[in-house]
Amino acid sequence: MAFSRFLPFRNSILAGAANVKASFWSNTGHGISTFGPDLAIDAGSSSVRSYANYTVFKGKAALSMTPVLPTIRKVDISKVYKNGCVMVTFWPAIGQRKYDWQKKQAFALSPTEVGSLIALGPAESCEFFHDPSMKSSLEGQVKKTLSVSPLGNDNGYFLNLSVVNHVQKTNERFSVPVTKAEFTVIRTVLSYVLPHIMGWPQALRSEVPSKATNLQKHQYVGEEVLRDPALEWER
Amino acid sequence: MAFSRFLPFRNSILAGAANVKASFWSNTGHGISTFGPDLAIDAGSSSVRSYANYTVFKGKAALSMTPVLPTIRKVDISKVYKNGCVMVTFWPAIGQRKYDWQKKQAFALSPTEVGSLIALGPAESCEFFHDPSMKSSLEGQVKKTLSVSPLGNDNGYFLNLSVVNHVQKTNERFSVPVTKAEFTVIRTVLSYVLPHIMGWPQALRSEVPSKATNLQKHQYVGEEVLRDPALEWER
Amino acid sequence: MAFSRFLPFRNSILAGAANVKASFWSNTGHGISTFGPDLAIDAGSSSVRSYANYTVFKGKAALSMTPVLPTIRKVDISKVYKNGCVMVTFWPAIGQRKYDWQKKQAFALSPTEVGSLIALGPAESCEFFHDPSMKSSLEGQVKKTLSVSPLGNDNGYFLNLSVVNHVQKTNERFSVPVTKAEFTVIRTVLSYVLPHIMGWPQALRSEVPSKATNLQKHQYVGEEVLRDPALEWER
Amino acid sequence: MAFSRFLPFRNSILAGAANVKASFWSNTGHGISTFGPDLAIDAGSSSVRSYANYTVFKGKAALSMTPVLPTIRKVDISKVYKNGCVMVTFWPAIGQRKYDWQKKQAFALSPTEVGSLIALGPAESCEFFHDPSMKSSLEGQVKKTLSVSPLGNDNGYFLNLSVVNHVQKTNERFSVPVTKAEFTVIRTVLSYVLPHIMGWPQALRSEVPSKATNLQKHQYVGEEVLRDPALEWER
Repeated sequence: MAFSRFLPFRNSILAGAANVKASFWSNTGHGISTFGPDLAIDAGSSSVRSYANYTVFKGKAALSMTPVLPTIRKVDISKVYKNGCVMVTFWPAIGQRKYDWQKKQAFALSPTEVGSLIALGPAESCEFFHDPSMKSSLEGQVKKTLSVSPLGNDNGYFLNLSVVNHVQKTNERFSVPVTKAEFTVIRTVLSYVLPHIMGWPQALRSEVPSKATNLQKHQYVGEEVLRDPALEWER
Repeated sequence: MAFSRFLPFRNSILAGAANVKASFWSNTGHGISTFGPDLAIDAGSSSVRSYANYTVFKGKAALSMTPVLPTIRKVDISKVYKNGCVMVTFWPAIGQRKYDWQKKQAFALSPTEVGSLIALGPAESCEFFHDPSMKSSLEGQVKKTLSVSPLGNDNGYFLNLSVVNHVQKTNERFSVPVTKAEFTVIRTVLSYVLPHIMGWPQALRSEVPSKATNLQKHQYVGEEVLRDPALEWER
Repeated sequence: MAFSRFLPFRNSILAGAANVKASFWSNTGHGISTFGPDLAIDAGSSSVRSYANYTVFKGKAALSMTPVLPTIRKVDISKVYKNGCVMVTFWPAIGQRKYDWQKKQAFALSPTEVGSLIALGPAESCEFFHDPSMKSSLEGQVKKTLSVSPLGNDNGYFLNLSVVNHVQKTNERFSVPVTKAEFTVIRTVLSYVLPHIMGWPQALRSEVPSKATNLQKHQYVGEEVLRDPALEWER
Repeated sequence: MAFSRFLPFRNSILAGAANVKASFWSNTGHGISTFGPDLAIDAGSSSVRSYANYTVFKGKAALSMTPVLPTIRKVDISKVYKNGCVMVTFWPAIGQRKYDWQKKQAFALSPTEVGSLIALGPAESCEFFHDPSMKSSLEGQVKKTLSVSPLGNDNGYFLNLSVVNHVQKTNERFSVPVTKAEFTVIRTVLSYVLPHIMGWPQALRSEVPSKATNLQKHQYVGEEVLRDPALEWER
């Protein structure tokens, strides 16, 4: 199990990396670290949320995953629902144990993309393409590709992000090797968070605010009919 | 991994489909969309719940899965308990990226049927039969069949719904190919929601409204005895 | 998939069975039913909890599983902690679709026994022995044995309970065949409920009553020290 | 399934062990027991939390696992975030069914180390090294090693902890065989608790304090922008 033998080494890198920009953060080598502009800004409003990520620091780059819940925003009289996602952020190493958050690139995993990561077999790979200007005249000008390919021998995966921008004439590439143990953490938290970014727990909670109310509700409310399995026989 | 290469294509279909009837909904290609009469009606009363579904749009039809919690309704002095289920709704495509919600047909998955979907192996298939008039004189007049069969090469499954109505002399068929990634989302949310449609989390919550109360409760209440594992030795 | 083809048949048995003793309960054939003395008594105090079970009706007997949370009871100045469990109850068929709850026998699964059911492979079997008078003079007078053995061809398992009582000179046996789909429901809810019967969610909840309080808490409280991973270096 | 046949025997050891130091604790042979200084101290402040562990008693030693949530502590104007972990504590047997809590040694599993235990295959092993003085002049003076190796024939694992202290000239070793069923309990609760020690549920909860507030929030608040998947296209 090479990966676990080398864990302390990797962790010391991590600890070092964390100390560079945020020496005041405790870092007990848990492979989790939280810093960078948005998190810093964020810490003001909601300090707990800003720590909900999983960060892996490697030689050439770091990657971090964090959940984004669905939201409902009122626009005039109508409501606009925005799907949740899992945001994957890459940023490059700029020296030993130094990483430049300014150069970060993000990729928002959809529920279905999360599903394909959860299902990924030891020898399988997958690839996702995002185009911000899909179905516009600019379609194809900017293209983001996240590819996941096996390290071999069931040792984990390479996560590669490439961002090609034909307008700015830039082509950025990030590559982070993720051990089997680290990918298991990712798969476990993705499985946990998937229903949340799809809004299911929030909906289930909204159905049973409390047992009492629940009983209340179901004695009178007409919506009850809506939720009757017998409905399967109607149109 | 053909399925992931084609994801963007499928997503653009989806985005298009969503725009047809609900151009005001944001749709970032996450394979989730929420519209149709009942959801619209519903949006008034409880906007969060109405988004708790997983919808897949394909060439010939779309399918959507949404959880239905168990309910307790008071009828005179007695309580009527209605089991929860996972409602699967199919509706047909009526042109490129156009779907007709009016022609929808629903199938309510029982906990055990959910269990067989969760357990389904890559090369396995299963079939469920529902008859609204079971054990009545009309038994067999209307029959719904949901069948799930593998696409082959561990690429996902075909979900087929057929509704035969001997009274109305109608025979409707829906067929939706679901990729391995999409089925993993389905399997993951079904595993998450199964205890909920069986009422377990609600029950566990009702047992520990708060630590304090919990202690209170267990000092005096006789029901405590009811929950004593030692009861295994009594009748 | 024989089991799914026969599901409607089994469900009609179930529906019938439910109607025998509790015709006022709705039963939409979901393989869940709730009746019998303790549940009836219970329904008064906490109607939601009494539905948190999973019941399977077969030709010779029925079985039901329900979670039992750990409890803390005050005895004089000290607290007595009682472990949670999953209660498995068997009761015999006394005719077509008729079951006699009075003749029920219960078996309380410990967390470790729950673990061995979750881990059970398709061709594996396991067996648990409980003796109420363990380490007393009566040791061995009454013995309960729950055995789980495969039906073959990955079709599910036989759940057998035998209760031998040398005092009352009785020997009762129950045998319920459980399909792969039904066992998947059992495995899924057991995995869900295992941390609960071990008291983990309650404990985690008691640690973060609210974000604010949490921050409060950790600024002053000495117990904080208790929870410092650095403690790994102390005695 | 040797392990289940021997379960009653192991449980009686356990029951005995518990009785030695804490005869007033009920112990129904569930493989869970809660005693020892820190828990005792702790019981005063938060009795529920102190029971959230999983303890296995074997011939030469006992081991216990308990979750530790991440914490945020205010230091002057900045906040210090401390990662959560799963604390594994070993203590030696000092005679038949007698264990000495004073001689305990603890090992704090990081999220990534938890991940490698969850991913561990039946024939695989792994090893973790912790050094309290990593990157200090004392580096290497004290070393803790937790190794997990298969018992063979898919029967479970040996969990071994060694603590070498060159300063105190001590070398302590603990070895606890864990059955497949017991490791399944461990794997199941580790999978459950992993997102919690990473702070994800707390963060998700802090996002949706209530549906109403949620809607409120998203109509006005600027942070909303922060959480917009479209952000994937910005820097």
